[in-house]
Amino acid sequence: MLPLTELQMADIMSRLNIKSLSEATIRQIVAVCGAAESVAGEPFIHLEVGNPGLPPNSIGIAAEHKALDNGVPAVYPPIMGVPELKNAASRFLKAFVDLDIPARCIVPSVGSMQGSFGMMLLLSFRDPAKDTMLYLNPGFPPQHLQARLVGLKEASFDIYNYRGAALEEKLESILSKGNVTGILYSNPNNPAWTNLTEKELEIIGRLATKYDAIVLEDMAYMGMDFRRDCGTPFVEPFIPTVGRYTDNYVVLLSASKIFSYAGQRVALVCMSPSVYDRRYTTLQNFLAMPAFGDAYVFGIVYAVSSGVSHSAQKAMAAMLDAAADGHINFVDDCREYKSRCEKAKTVFTDAGFHLVYDTDDGEPVSDGFFFTAGYRDMDSETLQRQLMRHGVASISLPGTGSKLHGLRICVSKLADDKDFETLAQRLKAFADEQA
Amino acid sequence: MLPLTELQMADIMSRLNIKSLSEATIRQIVAVCGAAESVAGEPFIHLEVGNPGLPPNSIGIAAEHKALDNGVPAVYPPIMGVPELKNAASRFLKAFVDLDIPARCIVPSVGSMQGSFGMMLLLSFRDPAKDTMLYLNPGFPPQHLQARLVGLKEASFDIYNYRGAALEEKLESILSKGNVTGILYSNPNNPAWTNLTEKELEIIGRLATKYDAIVLEDMAYMGMDFRRDCGTPFVEPFIPTVGRYTDNYVVLLSASKIFSYAGQRVALVCMSPSVYDRRYTTLQNFLAMPAFGDAYVFGIVYAVSSGVSHSAQKAMAAMLDAAADGHINFVDDCREYKSRCEKAKTVFTDAGFHLVYDTDDGEPVSDGFFFTAGYRDMDSETLQRQLMRHGVASISLPGTGSKLHGLRICVSKLADDKDFETLAQRLKAFADEQA
Repeated sequence: MLPLTELQMADIMSRLNIKSLSEATIRQIVAVCGAAESVAGEPFIHLEVGNPGLPPNSIGIAAEHKALDNGVPAVYPPIMGVPELKNAASRFLKAFVDLDIPARCIVPSVGSMQGSFGMMLLLSFRDPAKDTMLYLNPGFPPQHLQARLVGLKEASFDIYNYRGAALEEKLESILSKGNVTGILYSNPNNPAWTNLTEKELEIIGRLATKYDAIVLEDMAYMGMDFRRDCGTPFVEPFIPTVGRYTDNYVVLLSASKIFSYAGQRVALVCMSPSVYDRRYTTLQNFLAMPAFGDAYVFGIVYAVSSGVSHSAQKAMAAMLDAAADGHINFVDDCREYKSRCEKAKTVFTDAGFHLVYDTDDGEPVSDGFFFTAGYRDMDSETLQRQLMRHGVASISLPGTGSKLHGLRICVSKLADDKDFETLAQRLKAFADEQA
Repeated sequence: MLPLTELQMADIMSRLNIKSLSEATIRQIVAVCGAAESVAGEPFIHLEVGNPGLPPNSIGIAAEHKALDNGVPAVYPPIMGVPELKNAASRFLKAFVDLDIPARCIVPSVGSMQGSFGMMLLLSFRDPAKDTMLYLNPGFPPQHLQARLVGLKEASFDIYNYRGAALEEKLESILSKGNVTGILYSNPNNPAWTNLTEKELEIIGRLATKYDAIVLEDMAYMGMDFRRDCGTPFVEPFIPTVGRYTDNYVVLLSASKIFSYAGQRVALVCMSPSVYDRRYTTLQNFLAMPAFGDAYVFGIVYAVSSGVSHSAQKAMAAMLDAAADGHINFVDDCREYKSRCEKAKTVFTDAGFHLVYDTDDGEPVSDGFFFTAGYRDMDSETLQRQLMRHGVASISLPGTGSKLHGLRICVSKLADDKDFETLAQRLKAFADEQA
């Protein structure tokens, strides 16, 4: 029965040896949920996990079927990627982002997780004086873990207080130390769903060039800033990118969200030609390959997995081609998240919640995959725990590097009216308790 | 036209900026081959690449088709693996290796490359005093690269001179230093196709326990020591393993060769329960997870790729189950390599070649996926280059950590009589030149 009592909740956490929800990993939250659902005897509303909430793209599925029948499972995929995927990605990036990245500079990865991990691993070897990754927080917690695993130090700040022109001074103060090898952010942002403005991208790009930091631009939610429609190939507006303001960039492009293809673990590391071709004596000495891109392919990808599922590469190639040809509109396909987000925000604000990350340098944030919610001045731990008692699971902001209190709400699993009604009832029950 | 002249060969290598074939990576050898084929105007005999030479297992294909249609591409795979794969692997290991490894200790990896990389990455954190990987050479070159990437030192020796009882003193001399965290070998051996005897496995196991080194036993070519038939489930003889002699072991089990499924990049890291459950304060401090196995799943796998292709996991589960149920006989399916190997060895010895790694502590080595060939007292570089001139591509032994001169011959691509005839003609032409 919901809500769980404080005692039941404390008992569940004690049994799982979890002291704090706001410091728990997503996996631990999932474990708490499972136990709590079992105690309550009712399913929870799952706003914690970022699984796609739509069916997988049918063109990808068809291409994988065909690849399986063509015998590709017996053949090692080329570690630099199958040519049709590299070519399709190059055209896709031109069509929707207006970037010119040749096929040779595009390399598949086992999800963007492998992309950012592999990039950080390589960055850790390029220059002994550059030993730090800079994160524009909030962000995706395992990307911080990646830096630690490869032995890079971390610098970070919460962008909330440094939007617009204020970003320049903050970035300059960090980058001027000269020890930053890479800058990582996701745009749109996970969890805050903020989007960097053109002015902010220009600042980041200019300073990345000035201080030789390589920007890892994670486009997991590409095109899902629905305030403008970037879904028509080769037609403006194009998807914003730091790549317009620096040659020091790498785009991480994943099939997981834009094609609802997370299960097959296929994404792309798209290096600017300038990054790919940069030569380092450190890499020559360590890997016997001076060029950054070659070292990534033949030094890193070779060693960490020897490539990416052969059939999944064919699937992603087909989906990218279909998008660039205008046969599918991946932006429209994802617009369902916008509608779920609008409804969910209304349900939350009706219950007395507010948006935490609410604007992009003045303009209200977009509706999309995530949003952030706070309740009065309640701290994250209490809020997350109280909502869990009421059958609503979420992630709290401090775990994402945010300096603010509140929750990350993922709308992908809110599929029908019943879900929204249940959510509204539970949030009301929570709010009534606070009255 | 074949043979290429010395001048043509020198020109090709100079164009590709490759000074030495015996020190080149496989990828560079492939590039030389491509250029040489183009100059010669004739296809080469490819004995260099270890791709499966058989069609992919049809039960795997069918299971992947079904998984694709069931919507798994939209769903993140559990990072610890789908339950049916973990359960199938546990039963498979019991059926063919007679090991008791519970499902919870078995974790899928993106090929065994990710398995050994991830294990080494984790081993690099478990104990600061244990900073070295020990390799029983010869071996697979990128596994040495993996240690360097994660910051582990390397120790190694060529087992050729330390077979049988001699292995004990050699291992003792290295392990007694106390700095070895892991021991890696493949059995059957790539490239030498030697197989460790029960006596040798006992020595390795006993000393691994004594000095707390964790053995990574790479079973990429599992069951392919065709001198005895280990293809009947739950019936002796079982596949040899160090796991009978120590609890300090991890088996790497790949679908690539035994099911001809290399393209889909799916394998398993199978930890002994004792290894999985070992607790380290170092891991508690670094990853907030004390147990070795938990740290591997939620610290390493999560960060390096967040799991393995969802449909490929279903495929491997189906193939393992079919084997344990006796519906397929993966050992018989691979026996074609034995027959290709017998024929190839005859062609080579008829042309005056000899086996380099010829016995397992006295007993002639098995016929299988690879064998090693030398020619008189010719050094590896000269031999590899002269055969390349004559249209026969191979890998040389020094690059695999061997102290001996000769070549690794992979028989998988020798598919029909025509291939063997062409090979015989070219080896004869080579031998005639030496007369």
